[in-house]
Amino acid sequence: MPDPSLLETFPTPAETPFVVEHVQEEFTSVCPETGHPDFGEVTVLFEPRSKSAGGVCVELKSLKLYLQSFRNEGIYYEAVTNRIRDDLAACMGPAWLLIVTDWKGRGGIRSTIRAAHGEVPIEWMR
Amino acid sequence: MPDPSLLETFPTPAETPFVVEHVQEEFTSVCPETGHPDFGEVTVLFEPRSKSAGGVCVELKSLKLYLQSFRNEGIYYEAVTNRIRDDLAACMGPAWLLIVTDWKGRGGIRSTIRAAHGEVPIEWMR
Amino acid sequence: MPDPSLLETFPTPAETPFVVEHVQEEFTSVCPETGHPDFGEVTVLFEPRSKSAGGVCVELKSLKLYLQSFRNEGIYYEAVTNRIRDDLAACMGPAWLLIVTDWKGRGGIRSTIRAAHGEVPIEWMR
Amino acid sequence: MPDPSLLETFPTPAETPFVVEHVQEEFTSVCPETGHPDFGEVTVLFEPRSKSAGGVCVELKSLKLYLQSFRNEGIYYEAVTNRIRDDLAACMGPAWLLIVTDWKGRGGIRSTIRAAHGEVPIEWMR
Amino acid sequence: MPDPSLLETFPTPAETPFVVEHVQEEFTSVCPETGHPDFGEVTVLFEPRSKSAGGVCVELKSLKLYLQSFRNEGIYYEAVTNRIRDDLAACMGPAWLLIVTDWKGRGGIRSTIRAAHGEVPIEWMR
Amino acid sequence: MPDPSLLETFPTPAETPFVVEHVQEEFTSVCPETGHPDFGEVTVLFEPRSKSAGGVCVELKSLKLYLQSFRNEGIYYEAVTNRIRDDLAACMGPAWLLIVTDWKGRGGIRSTIRAAHGEVPIEWMR
Amino acid sequence: MPDPSLLETFPTPAETPFVVEHVQEEFTSVCPETGHPDFGEVTVLFEPRSKSAGGVCVELKSLKLYLQSFRNEGIYYEAVTNRIRDDLAACMGPAWLLIVTDWKGRGGIRSTIRAAHGEVPIEWMR
Amino acid sequence: MPDPSLLETFPTPAETPFVVEHVQEEFTSVCPETGHPDFGEVTVLFEPRSKSAGGVCVELKSLKLYLQSFRNEGIYYEAVTNRIRDDLAACMGPAWLLIVTDWKGRGGIRSTIRAAHGEVPIEWMR
Amino acid sequence: MPDPSLLETFPTPAETPFVVEHVQEEFTSVCPETGHPDFGEVTVLFEPRSKSAGGVCVELKSLKLYLQSFRNEGIYYEAVTNRIRDDLAACMGPAWLLIVTDWKGRGGIRSTIRAAHGEVPIEWMR
Amino acid sequence: MPDPSLLETFPTPAETPFVVEHVQEEFTSVCPETGHPDFGEVTVLFEPRSKSAGGVCVELKSLKLYLQSFRNEGIYYEAVTNRIRDDLAACMGPAWLLIVTDWKGRGGIRSTIRAAHGEVPIEWMR
Repeated sequence: MPDPSLLETFPTPAETPFVVEHVQEEFTSVCPETGHPDFGEVTVLFEPRSKSAGGVCVELKSLKLYLQSFRNEGIYYEAVTNRIRDDLAACMGPAWLLIVTDWKGRGGIRSTIRAAHGEVPIEWMR
Repeated sequence: MPDPSLLETFPTPAETPFVVEHVQEEFTSVCPETGHPDFGEVTVLFEPRSKSAGGVCVELKSLKLYLQSFRNEGIYYEAVTNRIRDDLAACMGPAWLLIVTDWKGRGGIRSTIRAAHGEVPIEWMR
Repeated sequence: MPDPSLLETFPTPAETPFVVEHVQEEFTSVCPETGHPDFGEVTVLFEPRSKSAGGVCVELKSLKLYLQSFRNEGIYYEAVTNRIRDDLAACMGPAWLLIVTDWKGRGGIRSTIRAAHGEVPIEWMR
Repeated sequence: MPDPSLLETFPTPAETPFVVEHVQEEFTSVCPETGHPDFGEVTVLFEPRSKSAGGVCVELKSLKLYLQSFRNEGIYYEAVTNRIRDDLAACMGPAWLLIVTDWKGRGGIRSTIRAAHGEVPIEWMR
Repeated sequence: MPDPSLLETFPTPAETPFVVEHVQEEFTSVCPETGHPDFGEVTVLFEPRSKSAGGVCVELKSLKLYLQSFRNEGIYYEAVTNRIRDDLAACMGPAWLLIVTDWKGRGGIRSTIRAAHGEVPIEWMR
Repeated sequence: MPDPSLLETFPTPAETPFVVEHVQEEFTSVCPETGHPDFGEVTVLFEPRSKSAGGVCVELKSLKLYLQSFRNEGIYYEAVTNRIRDDLAACMGPAWLLIVTDWKGRGGIRSTIRAAHGEVPIEWMR
Repeated sequence: MPDPSLLETFPTPAETPFVVEHVQEEFTSVCPETGHPDFGEVTVLFEPRSKSAGGVCVELKSLKLYLQSFRNEGIYYEAVTNRIRDDLAACMGPAWLLIVTDWKGRGGIRSTIRAAHGEVPIEWMR
Repeated sequence: MPDPSLLETFPTPAETPFVVEHVQEEFTSVCPETGHPDFGEVTVLFEPRSKSAGGVCVELKSLKLYLQSFRNEGIYYEAVTNRIRDDLAACMGPAWLLIVTDWKGRGGIRSTIRAAHGEVPIEWMR
Repeated sequence: MPDPSLLETFPTPAETPFVVEHVQEEFTSVCPETGHPDFGEVTVLFEPRSKSAGGVCVELKSLKLYLQSFRNEGIYYEAVTNRIRDDLAACMGPAWLLIVTDWKGRGGIRSTIRAAHGEVPIEWMR
Repeated sequence: MPDPSLLETFPTPAETPFVVEHVQEEFTSVCPETGHPDFGEVTVLFEPRSKSAGGVCVELKSLKLYLQSFRNEGIYYEAVTNRIRDDLAACMGPAWLLIVTDWKGRGGIRSTIRAAHGEVPIEWMR
């Protein structure tokens, strides 16, 4: 089951702002209605707060384990996306954060869901 | 024949705004002049109203059945696009909504039609 | 319903052998179990008999109308492919004929079916 | 020779604004200097005026015939583009209109020409 | 755990030979050493025996459920491939059968494993 | 109208065999039934006879002019292909020759026609 | 050596503004340090002044000859780009002009240089 | 170990502003935790100050050697990106500078990090 | 330095033959002449002997460590390829083995080297 | 002018046969009729004789300089291809050798020429 306690962080290495993007191409969870697996890609895009403001970045291996914890969870696309946004916002307190999930087709329809925390600058919207 | 009563919704799971995109790659209707089938791709892009404002999202399977209901309808590109826009706007009352239809070539010309409801932010125009 | 009487032919214009390939990218029929539409691509590849042997080619517009006649037929992938092979073999009596159908994914699985008539040379197998 | 009298229109089906794009991938005219054929792709992008304002859309088959009327015309890239812009602006009176012509390479140089009518919003510039 | 009892078949619809290919793009199992999930694509390619010889084809939905049964199994690439080959050969008794598994990168190395049953003609090797 | 007198040749520069392939991506002729233009790509693939055997190659600019001479000819796909094969075989007397024409979609069907002269080795068939 | 006297122009055919883009994919010059050839692609993008303001466009064949005059010139990437910008700005006096040069890799690094004349609108920056 | 003393510059050749982009597709360093190599692509994008303001550009071969000096350094993604940004900003004093690093997948996650110096105009953000 | 003692194997899981392919996309060594790094992709393709004949497969992680051991070795393309072929043939004693190395461009030339052990069937040559 | 004395070789490092392929993507010569530059890609594919038979491989940098020596030579496509074949066959005495030249479009026609020395196995023909 989704486990945010798996997430770890490290202090941002810079005073000047920078932007980080992680793309997990191998995400899977389970459709709560049919019990069939869903497959997708999760993009995590954020700007950490500056070093002097105590900014942190999510540690890559811990992010991987956290995303794997959805593997056998019955959960909707929209809920996955909002849940990841909430968990990462809580753990990093970033300047802003954008979560994008791209789902492979189901019944001929493929879907993309975006959930934001804070003010995502227009050039990072995708 | 197009049947909006097939559409179902569920409450948006979040207070913070998010953006949903569904792409049906296998849409077909019939050209009202020649009787030949038309084939295209339909993109539904919207931002639901927030949870406390009673925001809802269209349910994926019901969207599929609704789009299938155009299968044997004789209807123009422009009318398909406006019809889907109107039906989804009525059923979801979203913050904004964009419908894009991409049609395979007919006589060497391929066409794309966009119809919007409300103010679509510039970064979502496509 | 599939209607082979729609197929028309014209005499092959050459004594020397040649090879013809038609690809219909917009084929649709209906799944006999679920009633949901199937979408695919149909490839018709053949070598007509020579002119002096009375060889004929299928006429393009009649092929289009014949393929459209499957639109609302409930029929399995394998049956579609064998049916088209039989109907075209009967109407053209070609030196050899290969039918390939490529089906868009259903439940995450996409399928390709090939059915041959006569001896298809190895370089035309696909 | 280019014949704008071939163009026909139909009333826009909607009060709310929408955007239409037609791409003819098989355009050909003749270079007035060398007499050699030119090949290119013509994109017609416009927003019709609203229904109550008497807005109209160009009819697809008439557009095809109009574009075919350039087939044996000796005419420069820039003149083709401005001519189509003028003819379509006159026949539709759209809110705005953008014509883009993409020409296959000649002497190793490929060219793109854009001509606008009215104020084309920045998100539609291409 | 992998469950071949999920597999169902139907009689081949033709006397003449034909070739079937199913590609499941969303396969996942678990690495028995690290416990991390593996993701890959499974291709099933076969020629059923003829109708009068009692030939059968695997039913698509049952194939999907069978492949899903590997989801939480700790199993190596090579074993997955041989297991699927054995289970499908046993259930269909095909003229020949080829299983190809393509695995996403692990440690920068991506792998493909092929296992055959019977004599796979050279033009179908991939 | 197709004019083989436009074709010119030059002596092959080598005693050892070699293989030449010319691809004209901008071919156009006219459908004899509808009067609408057809667009396609013509591939000319051949092995000239050796220098001492009087082998010749078609000159590139003359090939271009010859292919342009089909521009306003009403002629079927199959006839174009056989005509070019015959004209080039007559003018070059090659060891072997293959003509492939790829036609853009008409009514959703795209076609490829191949016509050969002499024994085309299997590795050059396409 | 680069020879701007090769450049010729013709009057812009329109009063309304339009945008022209020429892409030469086959540009070559010589590295002044190593003497090895450099290969790249040159994009010329501009808006001519209006017809009544005496606007002109560069003639395509003269542009080709001008760009060919760099063939054996020893010159840096940055200097090529600024030189073309200056020569074309002087010869056309455009509303604005953008030169982009894309260079194939040297030592594993590929480079792109942009030089502008006047105010290039943001939608044309690339 | 990263050695900024390898970096050399040359005076910008122009008074008017221009934009330079270098992409090193073959960057490698070492993960400080696992000791395994990391592979990525480094993009350096900047606008030099004008010639009269003493603007300089980084010399291409020196940039290559500088980037090679990370080869056996144990260093995190984020630190690599900020380090290159700092070293190049110090050596060029550009109007603005953007460093983008794209890292191949590790554990199924691929990452992109961006670090800026000065005000990067929105059209150059990537 | 290349260290074949890093290679480990496991018994092949099947009596029937199968074919294994591993592609390491992130290979790097050093040019012995210039000292600059080389980057490439290494493909290992083999058929293990059968289980009862004592066939073994190379273990994936040990292959990764072995390939990493070339990182700081000064060695030519051809020698890398033959060395890997020899080391893997010695450690696995396969029915046959093919090593393919694809090298990124150096001086505008990209290279591919293949070295075989035993009789590689024609359908596996690449 | 083409200068085969630039070519250098080194002894093949292996007794067992292997296959080498070099692709120069940046080849240029001059059309002897029009004086305009031609641009293309040159592929050199060969199997050196074995080590004990005195087999040699062409050295990469010398190949680059040799190919650059065609830069300002007025020479036809066919002659370039046969010339390179002859020069490399003379300098290496390989088991077999294949030269393929791919030329960018001229007048809308792109060409590929192949010239062989010895018996090129069918799997290497391209």
